Parts: sequence; structure tokens; C-alpha cells
Amino acid sequence: MAKPAKKSARVARRPWSTKPAASPRPTVVTLGVSDLARSRRFYCDGLGFSASSASNDHIVFLDTGGVVLALYPRDLLAKDAQVSPKGSGFGGITVARNVGAKAELDAALEAARMAGAKILKLAQEAFWGGYSGYFADPDGHPWEVTYNPHWKLDAAGRVVLPR
Amino acid sequence: MAKPAKKSARVARRPWSTKPAASPRPTVVTLGVSDLARSRRFYCDGLGFSASSASNDHIVFLDTGGVVLALYPRDLLAKDAQVSPKGSGFGGITVARNVGAKAELDAALEAARMAGAKILKLAQEAFWGGYSGYFADPDGHPWEVTYNPHWKLDAAGRVVLPR
Repeated sequence: MAKPAKKSARVARRPWSTKPAASPRPTVVTLGVSDLARSRRFYCDGLGFSASSASNDHIVFLDTGGVVLALYPRDLLAKDAQVSPKGSGFGGITVARNVGAKAELDAALEAARMAGAKILKLAQEAFWGGYSGYFADPDGHPWEVTYNPHWKLDAAGRVVLPR
Repeated sequence: MAKPAKKSARVARRPWSTKPAASPRPTVVTLGVSDLARSRRFYCDGLGFSASSASNDHIVFLDTGGVVLALYPRDLLAKDAQVSPKGSGFGGITVARNVGAKAELDAALEAARMAGAKILKLAQEAFWGGYSGYFADPDGHPWEVTYNPHWKLDAAGRVVLPR
């Protein structure tokens, strides 16, 4: 895998973008779910996300101001990607929400628990100096809620990374 | 699961947020990887993402202007979430990138292939009126590259969903 990556680096500086200055941007993260109505309730009624009017009985779009979070039946998602729907255990991807204060984190984790989430890890001090907890959504997708004193959040709540 | 979700909906309108007007926001998506150096090459040299100087030998942060994309060893990610690292097959989560034109999509998919990605689905017309293809990153995480004529992208390339 390393060789093709090197090769492409020689071909173009930003091969993924037609605009030289633009960084490639993930626009949508789709969570495969087994019960769309249940997941919509969990994320909207439980966690307070707003469903876009572009949502329908087949797919739900949650606008978060940065990346769109989509909920879509797991089997159909695999079919769309042309991969086998078979799979079990840890999927290897987590989603995180950074909050601005420890107290906010505790409240968010408790709210997720009340919405039916399974708490995977109670909020605790992390080795990197922050504070972090995890819950699983109704399909087991792990969400981290985290407070990082070293990271700056902008007014809209987005992480501002150093260049 | 439905009952706790309903219950919490009665408790608070936006339980996940301390600011009434703010929508909860996913801030980071972490891809568990088996070879951090290889994945950094794939995403930075291959796909043109920029690694933040907050990155180090243990974790890589890619700033995308909306959500932070992090690369982190898969086993350590499972350990952090306190779940078993065991897992195989489709993980149930996909990441997508919306582009503004069909030609841009074809170029992006070809660039991903040259960077060492496995093409899962060649770009093709989708039943919902768009155009879409998929590739897998070095760890098999599925990425969709998609053109949706019904969706508006803002100047920064973020999807603008109807309310």
C-alpha cells in the first residue's frame, strides 16, 4: 500500500481537490442502523439533534453545522457500498463530541444514558490531560464525549486545530 | 430502547446541549487503523489532507474545516472506548465526501485509486438522482464520493441541508 501512496504524491499535491487551496472535506457520516424509527427517536428526541426536512421514511439527515450525520439501514448501506453486510463486533470507527467543560460532559453522558444509550465508559481523567467517556447508540456505534483542555472550540463548537 | 428515548424526550427538549439554541455537534470521527504511518501517507500524500501539528507518532489529526478526522491504532481505539477490539467485516459506518460536479467525482475516485485505495463501486448513476462511487481506505473503511444535484454546498464545501 505504501508504494502507490508515494507514487500518487508525486503526481499531484492535492489530488483530491480541483481547487488548489481547498482541503478535502468529509461531508457526511452515515451510521448503519437496524431500526430507523428507533434511531431517529434516539438521536432527535433523546440527544436533541434536528432532522432536516430532507429526511424521509428511508433515511434521516441530521444537520450538525459541520458534517451531516445520516441514519440509514445497515444492510442497505452495505449494499450501496457494494460490500458484504456481514460484520460483527467493533467496527473500527468512533464518533466524538467535544464539549467546553467537564460539567457539560457529565450532563451529556447522563442525557445519553437517559435516552437509552449504553454507557461504555464512565467519564474519567484521560492520560492526555482531558476528561472522556463513551456510550453506545442503539446499534452499538461508540460515541465519545470528551473535554480537551488543550483544544480550542470556536463559537459554533467546532474544534480549531493548530495548523 | 424506544421507551427510554420517549421518556427522555419528556425530560428536556435538547438534553445534549447546555445552550438552548445550539445543536449537538459531532466534532471528531476517528478511524481505527492498523498501520498509522501507512494511513497518514494514504490520507495526506494520497488524498491531500493536511495533518495538524497537533499530530504525533501516536495519533494523526486531519483538519477538514468541519469535523476533525483522526487516525488512531484500532486496538487502542477499542481500548479507549472500553469495548472488545474483536470485530470483522462491515463496521456499519461510512464516510462520504460530496463534490460539486460529476467530473470532480470521477477525478477524486481515480486519485483515491492511485493512492492505493480499493475501488468498491465505480461511479454510477444512483436511484435518487445523483452519481456515486465508493472506495475502501487501507483498513477497509468505506468512503463514498458523491454528487447530489439536489444538495447545495456552501463556499467552504459543506452541505447546506434544508431545515
